[in-house]
Amino acid sequence: MSLNERIDRITEKKDSLVCVGLDVNPERIPAHLMEGDDPVFRFCKQIIDATADLVSAYKPNLAFFEALGVDGWRILKRTVDYMPGHVLKIGDAKRGDIGSTAEKYAKSLFGLGFDAVTVNPYLGLDSVEPFIRDETRGVFILCLTSNPTSRDFQYLESGGRTLYQHIADKVCEWNTRDNCGLVVGATHPHELRELRTLAPDLPFLIPGIGAQGGDLEASVTAGTDDRGSKALINSSRGIIYASAGEDFPEAARRETLRLRDAVNKVRKQKEIR
Amino acid sequence: MSLNERIDRITEKKDSLVCVGLDVNPERIPAHLMEGDDPVFRFCKQIIDATADLVSAYKPNLAFFEALGVDGWRILKRTVDYMPGHVLKIGDAKRGDIGSTAEKYAKSLFGLGFDAVTVNPYLGLDSVEPFIRDETRGVFILCLTSNPTSRDFQYLESGGRTLYQHIADKVCEWNTRDNCGLVVGATHPHELRELRTLAPDLPFLIPGIGAQGGDLEASVTAGTDDRGSKALINSSRGIIYASAGEDFPEAARRETLRLRDAVNKVRKQKEIR
Repeated sequence: MSLNERIDRITEKKDSLVCVGLDVNPERIPAHLMEGDDPVFRFCKQIIDATADLVSAYKPNLAFFEALGVDGWRILKRTVDYMPGHVLKIGDAKRGDIGSTAEKYAKSLFGLGFDAVTVNPYLGLDSVEPFIRDETRGVFILCLTSNPTSRDFQYLESGGRTLYQHIADKVCEWNTRDNCGLVVGATHPHELRELRTLAPDLPFLIPGIGAQGGDLEASVTAGTDDRGSKALINSSRGIIYASAGEDFPEAARRETLRLRDAVNKVRKQKEIR
Repeated sequence: MSLNERIDRITEKKDSLVCVGLDVNPERIPAHLMEGDDPVFRFCKQIIDATADLVSAYKPNLAFFEALGVDGWRILKRTVDYMPGHVLKIGDAKRGDIGSTAEKYAKSLFGLGFDAVTVNPYLGLDSVEPFIRDETRGVFILCLTSNPTSRDFQYLESGGRTLYQHIADKVCEWNTRDNCGLVVGATHPHELRELRTLAPDLPFLIPGIGAQGGDLEASVTAGTDDRGSKALINSSRGIIYASAGEDFPEAARRETLRLRDAVNKVRKQKEIR
């Protein structure tokens, strides 16, 4: 089964578009966990235990694991290994390099157990190809990002189209094995709608709600397809740091439920219209 | 001292623009090394011992270390720690993410001991800023890459300038602490010359000679400044795999010397003209 078909099946079966971002900062882990062994893994494990039935994907952010030092990749691997088979495992790595190096990144990240990886398109197809050879695994390619300086280059216009539109066009071409998607920030609902029309078949990974200020209703409306599908709505800090106390798993579950239901309410309204 | 001033001093003192790329593939390490402990580190150590007096920089490619699995970062750290203080340590990581994540990447990579890191500009200044706060450390920002599909996006024209020119313009703006440079592939000598004029003060990291087919004479002529400086010419496979036998350190030294002297010959010709 292709990656994108699997995304459709999982989101449908679980009736959830929620992706939980694991951007785990040791400074924000509840104090009681820091006393035992492997606190970052134990934090992730309890988040996963508390939310796995409610979400379609987890998205560990590699920077946060790399920042743990030489032990970071072991903790990351232990975390990915712990995720159940009924969720998608997305490595938020934003890699992008020449072909021979991209091969190594693909080997490394898929070797860790990820189903999909975020990739930067700046180097073109060479840098993406090793990630999309096998239809069961694939990529979410950065298209329009959620950060304030996304305007530095992504909106440059060439031949009547912005750079991020050119990228969406190319990714549609590259999607011959049905395993490419786009990263589009929730901070750009107008552009989300435009990209949904431009790339009707691609799943969108949508970060930027919550701490980054993206509007949930606008981005779910704009970013899903006609059936309210083909999108993963990511929340990181809003879920994993919902409580700084011992009740953090319950608080994370409560926020995940709230997000899932809020997203589904918008999807239902979209179906009705 | 700013990073760029340090690059000038090191290349001048050593009279060498050579940067050796450590893209270490275990499949290409001489068989006798594979028998003992930590073969990748021992390979790197012997390359460093054989070449350190001839080069201004080493550039470990993170993908190749990550592909070694959970032990990769330990091997990378051991390799960076082993490099002498009189060479620049460039982490070829090509990272690029939103501000809060870029902070973590900067912490992680500078924490490993790198003086400079390669960064992808697609997300704009947010993604670069944490790497350039401290003038003694900095970035080489991807501008025009050496791979065949660099044309997919990098040559798009907007307002009479290509995307890679827009990036060079921005990096000149961002260089207020004299710690930004550009990555420009040796496979584009014409564009190297044009970028040298556009960004006269920035050091260029120039990969792509050797295995990738870039022309040495043309790229040194085009990529250095009037004094034949402000460039690091990278070779990876041509040096580290110069021999597959026990004599690999001597072979690496021979190739490094040959490259240093060939580069210096072009620099001298430039001075004379």
